[in-house]
Amino acid sequence: MNAQISDKTVGRLSLYRRLLSNLLREKEEEFVFSHRLARAAGVTAAQVRRDMMVIGYNGSPKKGYAIGDLIESIGYFLDAPGVQTVALVGVGNLGRAILTYFAGRRPNLKIVAVFDNDPNKAGTVISGCRCYAMQDMPEVFKEKKVNTAIVTVPASQAQSVADTLVAAGVRGLLNFAPVNLRVPVSVYVEDMDITTSLEKAAFFARCRMAS
Amino acid sequence: MNAQISDKTVGRLSLYRRLLSNLLREKEEEFVFSHRLARAAGVTAAQVRRDMMVIGYNGSPKKGYAIGDLIESIGYFLDAPGVQTVALVGVGNLGRAILTYFAGRRPNLKIVAVFDNDPNKAGTVISGCRCYAMQDMPEVFKEKKVNTAIVTVPASQAQSVADTLVAAGVRGLLNFAPVNLRVPVSVYVEDMDITTSLEKAAFFARCRMAS
Repeated sequence: MNAQISDKTVGRLSLYRRLLSNLLREKEEEFVFSHRLARAAGVTAAQVRRDMMVIGYNGSPKKGYAIGDLIESIGYFLDAPGVQTVALVGVGNLGRAILTYFAGRRPNLKIVAVFDNDPNKAGTVISGCRCYAMQDMPEVFKEKKVNTAIVTVPASQAQSVADTLVAAGVRGLLNFAPVNLRVPVSVYVEDMDITTSLEKAAFFARCRMAS
Repeated sequence: MNAQISDKTVGRLSLYRRLLSNLLREKEEEFVFSHRLARAAGVTAAQVRRDMMVIGYNGSPKKGYAIGDLIESIGYFLDAPGVQTVALVGVGNLGRAILTYFAGRRPNLKIVAVFDNDPNKAGTVISGCRCYAMQDMPEVFKEKKVNTAIVTVPASQAQSVADTLVAAGVRGLLNFAPVNLRVPVSVYVEDMDITTSLEKAAFFARCRMAS
């Protein structure tokens, strides 16, 4: 696995895979040309071909890419060999939704434990996932080999939760809290700020109405 | 309102506002220096100062920015003069969560109607929002002056929903479906792809563990 690959490339490969799976499921097609995949992904055909070189996949000039093979090649590159385990911290409305959203969605990327500081939640099962107290993190992470976590706590708690996660061995964070988390360079953070995104969409909607 | 402003600038202004509101609420401070706001937002102090010029705000060299005033100035720039109405389409798990997440969160950015193609949902009230049938969109949008919409339908329906939204007058979309929506240049799309983001966090977590 190449640690030098950019997060944009990984993002596109993940998107290609989903677009290809849709094609396979809905249209029952076997092949796709790079320009068509490019159009669906909103990138250039040259970009698609460069990304395929990264994963070492070659299409046929006449028929394009074999969809099933390509999905497999992307998976071979992106996915862990077995199941990769994920934890979620903060089971409020958003956390619960994310949990339900991912349940069974990607068989090889599985939320195996959730954590909350509400003592009434610890010990219960939420959307099929056992909820633990915050202080159980190191033990649970070690036992379940968790290296990736989703942070859905309020902004005021996000930094201290991130510190605890990093100390417990997590190296990849998907952060929904509107806070710039300070983590060591050895930790990757992907931010998803829903409020900012909605504010952007609303702002530009008004600009476009006005112009 | 300046239609030439970049979406990155708007994103940063939205983030600054939330960071400032947190400061005001938690620390009860009145002033903040640009370098401190910059650190919290993960940008340079020079960037913060450039963004302040965009909204025409000046701090005091001795005391920094007056937090309350700055929040107001950002709001004056970002927000609609009154309430800006938003619709949400697709009330599955994710849609329902987004709805609950935003309920009462931003008083001037309000989800006023939700739509679903399930006839059992139309006519009901979900998280305080009336649910309508898809075909009621043009009428409801006109009545409630909706120009922004959140798309939380499955990937296979996203393009046709986007087409309907655009035809009904929407100019800003927050799209959760993993699909590159094709819309006229007069429409702004902000994509939030949760699956790709989790796959990225998981991929880089493994890279960092291995290295």
